[in-house]
Amino acid sequence: MKKIYFDNAATTALDSNVLDVMLPYMTEKFGNPSSIYSYGRESRLAIETARKSVAKILNAHPGEIFFTSGGTESSNTAIAAAINNLGCRHIISSEIEHHATLHSVEHLHSRDNIRLSNVNLLSNGHVDMEHLRELLAGSKERCLVTLMHANNEIGNLLDMHAVGNLCKEFDAIFHSDTVQTVGHYPFDLRNTPVHFINGSAHKFHGPKGVGILYINENVKITPFIHGGSQERNMRAGTENVYGIVGFAKALEMATAHYEEHSAYINDLRMYMAEQLQQHIPGIGFNGDLHGRSLYTVLNVSFPKTEKSEMLLFNLDINGICASGGSACTSGADAGSHVIRAINSDPNRIAVRFSFSKDNTKEEIDTVVAKLKELI
Amino acid sequence: MKKIYFDNAATTALDSNVLDVMLPYMTEKFGNPSSIYSYGRESRLAIETARKSVAKILNAHPGEIFFTSGGTESSNTAIAAAINNLGCRHIISSEIEHHATLHSVEHLHSRDNIRLSNVNLLSNGHVDMEHLRELLAGSKERCLVTLMHANNEIGNLLDMHAVGNLCKEFDAIFHSDTVQTVGHYPFDLRNTPVHFINGSAHKFHGPKGVGILYINENVKITPFIHGGSQERNMRAGTENVYGIVGFAKALEMATAHYEEHSAYINDLRMYMAEQLQQHIPGIGFNGDLHGRSLYTVLNVSFPKTEKSEMLLFNLDINGICASGGSACTSGADAGSHVIRAINSDPNRIAVRFSFSKDNTKEEIDTVVAKLKELI
Ligand SMILES: Cc1ncc(COP(=O)(O)O)c(C=O)c1O
Ligand SMILES: Cc1ncc(COP(=O)(O)O)c(C=O)c1O
Repeated sequence: MKKIYFDNAATTALDSNVLDVMLPYMTEKFGNPSSIYSYGRESRLAIETARKSVAKILNAHPGEIFFTSGGTESSNTAIAAAINNLGCRHIISSEIEHHATLHSVEHLHSRDNIRLSNVNLLSNGHVDMEHLRELLAGSKERCLVTLMHANNEIGNLLDMHAVGNLCKEFDAIFHSDTVQTVGHYPFDLRNTPVHFINGSAHKFHGPKGVGILYINENVKITPFIHGGSQERNMRAGTENVYGIVGFAKALEMATAHYEEHSAYINDLRMYMAEQLQQHIPGIGFNGDLHGRSLYTVLNVSFPKTEKSEMLLFNLDINGICASGGSACTSGADAGSHVIRAINSDPNRIAVRFSFSKDNTKEEIDTVVAKLKELI
Repeated sequence: MKKIYFDNAATTALDSNVLDVMLPYMTEKFGNPSSIYSYGRESRLAIETARKSVAKILNAHPGEIFFTSGGTESSNTAIAAAINNLGCRHIISSEIEHHATLHSVEHLHSRDNIRLSNVNLLSNGHVDMEHLRELLAGSKERCLVTLMHANNEIGNLLDMHAVGNLCKEFDAIFHSDTVQTVGHYPFDLRNTPVHFINGSAHKFHGPKGVGILYINENVKITPFIHGGSQERNMRAGTENVYGIVGFAKALEMATAHYEEHSAYINDLRMYMAEQLQQHIPGIGFNGDLHGRSLYTVLNVSFPKTEKSEMLLFNLDINGICASGGSACTSGADAGSHVIRAINSDPNRIAVRFSFSKDNTKEEIDTVVAKLKELI
């Protein structure tokens, strides 16, 4: 049975061109980048070249890009720094953030007694900007606003400029979890009012276990992970050299093909939405499909029936990969905190389909036909 | 010019057998281990198989092994947990710890006002056990003792049993940084009185950017990195699947060949020590070469001259990789905090040579001849 992989928001296949540039650093070029001899300097050079490339693509300074072990570590670092170094005593976030944000924030709330507020959400999943303004205006303490750029379950896109400008007005720190958009969206950080963003290579055909944190040059923080002087004293630990090289290559490739791939993937998504509406009665979509939404994600709402409750299970049996909540919790089967927060209708079942350049319309036809059969 | 790599305590070459088992997880087997469909379960299975293998080798329970991004993150996690979760308010450490420990400890000291004590060191670099007892006995608060197993610069081996038993006597938490010994030493954790140890794959021919933390089942801690429910809610972030698979394979290979390789490497080390003594006047060795010492490290003390001050530089020019301090600081050229702590003689220059199974006596002959020439 040929597998159909429609779960690209969970992780993506490593591109073979990316693997090719990683392999030399997994074979002969193994020197420790911190070593002073030429053999180490070669690894160091690879890292600094990767950093420059990533910075250029995001329109940031190389000095603002730090390599980490992934999107989660990056979010933890940014959020902790806002509290530990930047004087924030009040965090404004939302109920539909990724657990990397939710749990970091809860930890600081309980350990350091940091105040927490959730911004209201509209029924289409977007942030209520008026409420955000009220929260900021009403806060006596410096705020950290942490709101994700694209939601990993419903695809909703935040207006980073609007939120960033509001944060500026109230001297708040702004972190945006951009794990779903780095590699899928054209960033221009020098002209974006944000202090921290993060990325994770495996979301755009790069390797697992490597990410970035962008730290705007105007904020000065201390490390989250303490130790050696790697990453200009900001992130200790022997660098994952081949991972870093792979991050940069994956981002370069994503950027080179952005126009083509984003249009192609959006077509797939819209085609699937349309086919589903045509063939499956009672179907709906969570989020803002026709509005501010990332082109990779389609979150489908099915009427709850005995059959739809078994949907993911039956899709799997048929070699079709899709997901209920985010991957990180699906094992725990706790349902989706995102869907619960925006749409508490207990009579619906949400399934996320998420696409990549490697998917095809034929796959969508197969999946829609199978869904018709299963529902 | 053929390179001679005598800096295996900084990092080692990835074994091609290890790369071979990693590659399937960098190509077709890319599923997210947290995804519920079969494609994800395959990755999950790889991780759990790796965990069981590592646990078996270290004689621990699989539930006590957690995968991290490396030795540094593991040390940070253990040390922070002792303070945040286990009630420790006094840290007993030493001046010759790795920076992952030193800087974690300093951070907690300054942020949480945790008391710090350094145990005295004997001139051969070993811990003064009487002083350790005094420190523990004199402490009104619960202590964390964090002392490394093998020192990465001078190779000195701690008597983990003696320190662990002392900790037991005083109800202290014991963390030992075992980054230099995991993969180079036969552990039997079920019979070792220690709460936390850590390992880093790239120190024993595994991949960079992946490590373990052993957490004894009798201690319960909260995560250091918050987010998804990976690693049984203990370490969030999409798993570095191929890194984890590589960690286990590298440890399996190191274990299978332990007797053979450790004897071989120790012979190399002793041969080099002997050759140096024979050919270079005024030479000495830092640490406890003929006593409790790891077989991989030879720290040579040269009389300071204009020539010896240029030694690392000239070795590099001749294709010979060796190091002054630990790799993590050598870029900063701050000298070695370890050598400063045990031997403050300003008229000596320390150079670390560290060996692996891939080195040969011929290489040592070449290096000794070159040293004769350079000194
Ligand atoms: C003794 C010791 N502890 C900790 C570390 C840190 O390990 P890593 O750099 O893989 O995080 C190293 C090596 O760098 C080490 O030698
Ligand atoms: C929106 C978002 N933030 C953060 C993360 C965490 O990234 P990683 O698992 O690579 O640490 C993910 C994916 O898992 C994500 O989708």
